Amino acid sequence: MRTNRAWSSQMNVKAVVMEVPGSLVQKEYPQPSINDDTAVLDVALCGICGTDKHIYKNESKSHFLDLPTNFPIIPGHEIVGTIESIGKNASKRMGLLGERIFEGDRVVPVVDLRCEECWNCKNYPGWPVCERGQTYGWGITSKNPPYLFGGFAQKMYLLPNILLAKVPDSVPDNIAVYAEVLSVGCTSFQRVLHSSNVYGEGSPIVGDVVIQGSGPLALAHVITARILGARNIIVVGKPSYRTEYMNKFGVTKVFNVDESSLEERIPKVLCSLDTRKGADIVVECTGYPEVVEEGLSYVKPFGTYVIAGIYTDLGRSSTVNVQKLISGKHVTVVGVSGQTNRSYKTALDIMEKLASKLPFEEIVTHTFPIGKVDDAMQTALKEESMKVVIDPQKI
Amino acid sequence: MRTNRAWSSQMNVKAVVMEVPGSLVQKEYPQPSINDDTAVLDVALCGICGTDKHIYKNESKSHFLDLPTNFPIIPGHEIVGTIESIGKNASKRMGLLGERIFEGDRVVPVVDLRCEECWNCKNYPGWPVCERGQTYGWGITSKNPPYLFGGFAQKMYLLPNILLAKVPDSVPDNIAVYAEVLSVGCTSFQRVLHSSNVYGEGSPIVGDVVIQGSGPLALAHVITARILGARNIIVVGKPSYRTEYMNKFGVTKVFNVDESSLEERIPKVLCSLDTRKGADIVVECTGYPEVVEEGLSYVKPFGTYVIAGIYTDLGRSSTVNVQKLISGKHVTVVGVSGQTNRSYKTALDIMEKLASKLPFEEIVTHTFPIGKVDDAMQTALKEESMKVVIDPQKI
Amino acid sequence: MRTNRAWSSQMNVKAVVMEVPGSLVQKEYPQPSINDDTAVLDVALCGICGTDKHIYKNESKSHFLDLPTNFPIIPGHEIVGTIESIGKNASKRMGLLGERIFEGDRVVPVVDLRCEECWNCKNYPGWPVCERGQTYGWGITSKNPPYLFGGFAQKMYLLPNILLAKVPDSVPDNIAVYAEVLSVGCTSFQRVLHSSNVYGEGSPIVGDVVIQGSGPLALAHVITARILGARNIIVVGKPSYRTEYMNKFGVTKVFNVDESSLEERIPKVLCSLDTRKGADIVVECTGYPEVVEEGLSYVKPFGTYVIAGIYTDLGRSSTVNVQKLISGKHVTVVGVSGQTNRSYKTALDIMEKLASKLPFEEIVTHTFPIGKVDDAMQTALKEESMKVVIDPQKI
Amino acid sequence: MRTNRAWSSQMNVKAVVMEVPGSLVQKEYPQPSINDDTAVLDVALCGICGTDKHIYKNESKSHFLDLPTNFPIIPGHEIVGTIESIGKNASKRMGLLGERIFEGDRVVPVVDLRCEECWNCKNYPGWPVCERGQTYGWGITSKNPPYLFGGFAQKMYLLPNILLAKVPDSVPDNIAVYAEVLSVGCTSFQRVLHSSNVYGEGSPIVGDVVIQGSGPLALAHVITARILGARNIIVVGKPSYRTEYMNKFGVTKVFNVDESSLEERIPKVLCSLDTRKGADIVVECTGYPEVVEEGLSYVKPFGTYVIAGIYTDLGRSSTVNVQKLISGKHVTVVGVSGQTNRSYKTALDIMEKLASKLPFEEIVTHTFPIGKVDDAMQTALKEESMKVVIDPQKI
Repeated sequence: MRTNRAWSSQMNVKAVVMEVPGSLVQKEYPQPSINDDTAVLDVALCGICGTDKHIYKNESKSHFLDLPTNFPIIPGHEIVGTIESIGKNASKRMGLLGERIFEGDRVVPVVDLRCEECWNCKNYPGWPVCERGQTYGWGITSKNPPYLFGGFAQKMYLLPNILLAKVPDSVPDNIAVYAEVLSVGCTSFQRVLHSSNVYGEGSPIVGDVVIQGSGPLALAHVITARILGARNIIVVGKPSYRTEYMNKFGVTKVFNVDESSLEERIPKVLCSLDTRKGADIVVECTGYPEVVEEGLSYVKPFGTYVIAGIYTDLGRSSTVNVQKLISGKHVTVVGVSGQTNRSYKTALDIMEKLASKLPFEEIVTHTFPIGKVDDAMQTALKEESMKVVIDPQKI
Repeated sequence: MRTNRAWSSQMNVKAVVMEVPGSLVQKEYPQPSINDDTAVLDVALCGICGTDKHIYKNESKSHFLDLPTNFPIIPGHEIVGTIESIGKNASKRMGLLGERIFEGDRVVPVVDLRCEECWNCKNYPGWPVCERGQTYGWGITSKNPPYLFGGFAQKMYLLPNILLAKVPDSVPDNIAVYAEVLSVGCTSFQRVLHSSNVYGEGSPIVGDVVIQGSGPLALAHVITARILGARNIIVVGKPSYRTEYMNKFGVTKVFNVDESSLEERIPKVLCSLDTRKGADIVVECTGYPEVVEEGLSYVKPFGTYVIAGIYTDLGRSSTVNVQKLISGKHVTVVGVSGQTNRSYKTALDIMEKLASKLPFEEIVTHTFPIGKVDDAMQTALKEESMKVVIDPQKI
Repeated sequence: MRTNRAWSSQMNVKAVVMEVPGSLVQKEYPQPSINDDTAVLDVALCGICGTDKHIYKNESKSHFLDLPTNFPIIPGHEIVGTIESIGKNASKRMGLLGERIFEGDRVVPVVDLRCEECWNCKNYPGWPVCERGQTYGWGITSKNPPYLFGGFAQKMYLLPNILLAKVPDSVPDNIAVYAEVLSVGCTSFQRVLHSSNVYGEGSPIVGDVVIQGSGPLALAHVITARILGARNIIVVGKPSYRTEYMNKFGVTKVFNVDESSLEERIPKVLCSLDTRKGADIVVECTGYPEVVEEGLSYVKPFGTYVIAGIYTDLGRSSTVNVQKLISGKHVTVVGVSGQTNRSYKTALDIMEKLASKLPFEEIVTHTFPIGKVDDAMQTALKEESMKVVIDPQKI
Repeated sequence: MRTNRAWSSQMNVKAVVMEVPGSLVQKEYPQPSINDDTAVLDVALCGICGTDKHIYKNESKSHFLDLPTNFPIIPGHEIVGTIESIGKNASKRMGLLGERIFEGDRVVPVVDLRCEECWNCKNYPGWPVCERGQTYGWGITSKNPPYLFGGFAQKMYLLPNILLAKVPDSVPDNIAVYAEVLSVGCTSFQRVLHSSNVYGEGSPIVGDVVIQGSGPLALAHVITARILGARNIIVVGKPSYRTEYMNKFGVTKVFNVDESSLEERIPKVLCSLDTRKGADIVVECTGYPEVVEEGLSYVKPFGTYVIAGIYTDLGRSSTVNVQKLISGKHVTVVGVSGQTNRSYKTALDIMEKLASKLPFEEIVTHTFPIGKVDDAMQTALKEESMKVVIDPQKI
């Protein structure tokens, strides 16, 4: 499953640095050395996320809790790799669910660090909402040694507080690299399923689901909805590459927003659902605040709307008639910003145990060597792709 | 507790009709007669609700589910009265929780009827979300016999599907008349307490609560929050009559929005809470969509925002940066439009069992005879009052 | 899909009556006539339930709320049939979710009637917990006209308060007859999913599930668990006919209780789960109180135990060390007695929408003409069968 | 508020050791010294808990997760004290909710340590369910230096992983010492309020509550129920000292089990509730498995039973007809073993913010100098007391 990693014995580690938005520069860094509490990861693959794209296009004003992007950064936080070396305390502490981690283990890192000291960490155990914003890929700068704090690099330095989810043997790297994304889908539905109305008395289990968007995050929610037994799954997205792609994952119906006006689309989406009253759950997976009012139109009375894609602040607002779309329908709106730590395990469980149900191996549509990171970014931006990943072991 | 009701033996029943917004006309109607399935209520008191005011001022575009006001109407849906006569089937069916109802029983009617046949009634048992919109006071027209379908009248005709909550002996009319409002507070918190994060592991029970608004609906939420053990209750409202009034009910701190700009107010409200991180629960009780963004600013990470006051569509939208205020903070937004049937019982239980804790008898600040309905409406509009009620047995 | 129903035009309706436990007598009754509020169902198939067996064997002391079996009865409450005739009010009222019901519609009746007047009906809308205990098959006696109140009959008389779930065209009778059982599985998981710990932060969606029992009710829970994305599903049951049968539905592992002692079995079951800490959810589907302590041994800390099979009181108790098995592990125990009304719709949705995932057509393993009801009962008692049904249109 | 602590400058620290059940021996230990990660607490007061009594009487077989008592122990885990000295890392890490802790701060320690490495710690963040069982007072032996791992001592050594809840200035030691107990009440209700049925649509907020037991843990649940707005609170306990004591805290009615047989008592308790159908919530606070069947008899349909008092395994089972008492009533049973970390803060919040509502200062009824620990234990055993505490600064 793994390529021969000639790089690991070399002095220099290749990485891609974004010093300012829009610029991706290849650099070399010294091999990092570990202590008892840290580790080094050989990065096998790293995905390009919508957040990476927003930062690249200089659209991102801030992240959760108004946290900034700490330039210069090594982008990339959707990572799978192999432990090259690990300290003895780290070996005991880094396992996501208490398991020991050893050299040679394949892992997906939980990229949001928790300091375990700030108010947020103390109040929300298990959630990646640390006030210090130490997230690999945008929150920890690569200005200072050991520099390697993002996934667009051959190696990554693992700080003491990181958690690592072990990848089951049967899940190859090109599927495991998607675990970080899929875990957001898991978190969204876990949040939703806690709300009182979805699992109401006699509700159709997960019932009807509408997903706004058709990129990798939308796909994560399609997958989770299917696994949870959704009755109908409707996707509203674009462009046609992606909306057509969704059929691989057995959605009930797809609407391409380029092919209809809002006025035409709303009744069509509603009529595609058995009840014509709206969906039990609608999930925003576009990243754009402008879609919120449309999304709320698809929610049935007492249904739930999840805002899962608007992770980065674009400095723009949503405009909503809350009487018609929220209070008058007794709707619940759930904001999701990233995932719980343990949902990484859930994502990997799904990939392992439920793999036969869905073509996970088709999620990564494009793989680029690290030397072609610009091409990778352009491919991701063009959206004629599902998940685009970088293989840093290839040049 | 009851005044001498000379009217009840007369041929004609006095009532106030709104044929178009802004006009309140006194009319007389014939005494209604009942059958096995119906009943007649002697109205003791009827409150003026914000919805009545919005309809009067011609601000209301529609109600829940886009339901219209069916002019001409007899306004008024906050009602307490005594059963004058009741049919034998009605006696068995109208009790809110299975109790028999007899002549002479004091009751608060559940003013939203359920047809028990439409999709909404079949799907949401116990919730007043019937698609036919038969609500006393605005949804059932008074155009046709027996006309008496609102509380601004000496008698009210009780249709077969109505439910009636019995008033405990120890709760006088001038407190029971507020049960319909208080039941919305109960419903809001019941919805909130189902959400996953408020009763999180180790949460401060209900924690800190901020209420936007300082009218009767705001007061209903203050009362419910106090009863549920809120740590701090902060009110943000106006005018000074009402904000000062709130101290009677033991709120922690009150902010008058006339006395500060939004920019000044937000940090002040946050600093009035122990954690300075925002409140666990913020409840909108103003009726105005413009306050939503401010309200969301007061919610702490993983907290809940309830939209409870925007019951009538004013045709206006809210503008919200959902990344900063909802998804980036993992916030849940709960829309509440009215109350559950059984929450009327909860409200009356509170009035009976927990009365010693709070000065319920001060809620009704102004009582007008039915002949002075215009004065009553002007007093309610001016907001130098808490609850304004009409006594239809007095002229 | 339907057999030619020559019987429907005849004067006499064949039925099987149990006057005392252990006796099944064939009788004929007059064709019932309807009024505006009632209907007549042509019974296509009727399953034999564990409750029927307990009553037959005189093991059943009482049902929920201590309700008795009202002998003489026409047994049978797992029913699918076709509307032969329906009154005009009934046509509007009997649809489970507000849809109109017409002659010729195929339906599954919700066999527990609600009076809508008693305390339980008023307090628990949507749940079949009426204090009057009017359940077809055991609660409504067949002593009085029109007699036909159970499914072991060619026709069944539908009282005004009954609800009917329409059967989708693509679901044949021999699958739809299982809807009543499957709906219990849906209800169990809906109850469980409301509990705080299963959908915890980062939980493996439904996680690992252990089912105690291997009959039709156990199968209903296997199906629901699979549809909800359970990671592993372990069955602990007997006899070998049934435990082997379970593999058709893709369970992870089966343990036959005849092949191991309790002491051997508990560690084996625990080791068959990835975590070895116990299952997230364990469901009792045996009907026997003696299995409760074993079942609780399979629950992991903070997990949930569902008692779903002990529907009828056998007059026997369970013995449990609650410190070791409940409080010391922070376990939640959920008692389920039957299903919500609307879960019938969920069951039929599953049969329609998710049919391709599972071999629903193999659930009914034995079909007997009504004239061979004794053979049917013996086959059901022997447990070398999954679901045994009676076809009352065949003699 | 604090006594003059002459001891703190002395060489020797007085403590009480239990080497075997039933023996309490006074010993002296050297003053412990701290490092960057640890601290020393001057113990102001330490309560005697039911667990201490069970251990003393040699009734306790094991604690949660089958964890043993690690003799010799210094008993006592209900503690309030003042930080004598604290290391610089400890100062940043020990604050329960992220606050810094300094010398001189009054604190209540969270006595269950989490290793943050085992499977339980990783899976249940925020819960004290560590598999290593390092609980002050029974789980950490006092065999090895620095010995001081229980509250029956003048000083306590605070290990790196301990959390400390700061005591508000307005809460005196003799109230704060009860925080550990009250936090169990908070945790119980937090668990319950997550269950689907208590905060059902229209439920009477917390509704009717029955508490089994009348000791300090029962009182913690009475207090929490009152703060949460329970409609009626019924206590079923003994002896008369304690049942009469409960009236100080405004319970609705008290039943002394010494004054009635079970057969007499059950209908009387049910009739003391408005609905006569049972309580919404019943909480076991006796510690004895024999009371479970009686307690379940008090639960209404769809209600919740909490097992909160059976913390220590006495090696005895409960016998329950689960059909009549759990499944046939759709009851939920919630096992609670101790409290969440953060519920300590909730308890202290209640003591601070809601103190005016309840006579917290009357909870400690007896205070003994450390030299009279045997008298203290006998007083606690006799149950003619509410909370008995030891003041280790007095001899």
